Amino acid sequence: MKKYLYTLEMETRDYECDLQGIVNNANYQHYLEATRHKWLQEQGYSFRQWHEEGLDVVVAEITLKYKTPLHGQEAFLSCLNLRRDGVRFVFEQDIYRKSDMKLCVSAQVSAVCIVNGALSRGDEIAEKFNL
Amino acid sequence: MKKYLYTLEMETRDYECDLQGIVNNANYQHYLEATRHKWLQEQGYSFRQWHEEGLDVVVAEITLKYKTPLHGQEAFLSCLNLRRDGVRFVFEQDIYRKSDMKLCVSAQVSAVCIVNGALSRGDEIAEKFNL
Amino acid sequence: MKKYLYTLEMETRDYECDLQGIVNNANYQHYLEATRHKWLQEQGYSFRQWHEEGLDVVVAEITLKYKTPLHGQEAFLSCLNLRRDGVRFVFEQDIYRKSDMKLCVSAQVSAVCIVNGALSRGDEIAEKFNL
Amino acid sequence: MKKYLYTLEMETRDYECDLQGIVNNANYQHYLEATRHKWLQEQGYSFRQWHEEGLDVVVAEITLKYKTPLHGQEAFLSCLNLRRDGVRFVFEQDIYRKSDMKLCVSAQVSAVCIVNGALSRGDEIAEKFNL
Repeated sequence: MKKYLYTLEMETRDYECDLQGIVNNANYQHYLEATRHKWLQEQGYSFRQWHEEGLDVVVAEITLKYKTPLHGQEAFLSCLNLRRDGVRFVFEQDIYRKSDMKLCVSAQVSAVCIVNGALSRGDEIAEKFNL
Repeated sequence: MKKYLYTLEMETRDYECDLQGIVNNANYQHYLEATRHKWLQEQGYSFRQWHEEGLDVVVAEITLKYKTPLHGQEAFLSCLNLRRDGVRFVFEQDIYRKSDMKLCVSAQVSAVCIVNGALSRGDEIAEKFNL
Repeated sequence: MKKYLYTLEMETRDYECDLQGIVNNANYQHYLEATRHKWLQEQGYSFRQWHEEGLDVVVAEITLKYKTPLHGQEAFLSCLNLRRDGVRFVFEQDIYRKSDMKLCVSAQVSAVCIVNGALSRGDEIAEKFNL
Repeated sequence: MKKYLYTLEMETRDYECDLQGIVNNANYQHYLEATRHKWLQEQGYSFRQWHEEGLDVVVAEITLKYKTPLHGQEAFLSCLNLRRDGVRFVFEQDIYRKSDMKLCVSAQVSAVCIVNGALSRGDEIAEKFNL
């Protein structure tokens, strides 16, 4: 398995599944967001608090590759890496089914920093994470 | 059919259904909320704007009776009445399947007014609606 | 604190909050459903599997009392009791904020059994749980 | 404005917004899915029905570019084009804010056909749409 900066164990819920009995595609974005926010919380930060201080980290682009569907009440690992690419912060996020470590979703989430309403180079964020 | 103050035609979406192929119970609360907000918008008001002005209309209690399930991509009518009961504003909301006007969900939603953080008698709201 | 048959620790996610920064009312129904399904899973059962075997446990009525709102990324305890009341199975479910054990939501969820499409007295379920 | 095969007018709902007061990123996937399903319904087809007949159209990859955020209770146009690219069906989907026709989200959704569990060349679908 690849090395990750952060791994969170989560579990799907039945209401997140659609009539095919598999997790609806949009819900993976929820899992990915929850993982980023949880990782940040464990670093002592919060998107919410940053927002109140005038610093918004905003998703500009997201690519999701769907490999293997998750079903209801299945445990999975949500893994995260982070790199800087110009003004963008790129979260590389993979979701693995826990039972057999099969890759379910592979995502790339590009975010930019908005400081008091204007696009920033992102140094405020970069220095917090040594990027 | 009962008489209502306001009726909104809506349609279910497939992602709102669970693996039984019927709309997940929690989503009816979304329909009911959307109906209240839409009704308010058409009166020229907005919960959001009230929130910014320090006036919050907060749901204190909700009772939902599930009669007939809706399936994906089905049209329905979401109907609303409003009455005052002491400090409470009671929304009586019914959802009917459009194809045969069968009653799907019957709900009672009790809300109270919070003005600058304190429970209010609700006169700010009552006068807007002649209650 | 009251005694419960089952307690599950959960955590809110930021996307479940609305613009007031608190968990949207409908999401508590998701938490309550997830708790019932998780409890059942730990007993070795599954609503999904029952559904495939022709046995559906269907929510007929739900009452939710909203006491204290939860915010994003807050831990909470979701507690459950179960009793039988005629053909109904009544789940009494309470949600407490973990930090101070304040009661957030108190719910009563009444379900009935449908066996091969017809309302059942519920003995299939009752005997599984000694009710 | 670009030419599209299909355009659906929709409206955001307040519960789809997060604490920044803008529609949560994942909800755009819901809008896009609802648009594809609605378009199909108007052609006389249904993903659900195909699923029951053993034909699944499965999203393999999705790219979303977020341009301008939508707020609560805002009307928008959800537009769709479709082309074939090898075994893939590529939906090009754009979302415009109705008030000023500003581009909000631009997405590319690649789907493949699974017939009785095996990847298909997609001719079953292609012939329905003259692709």
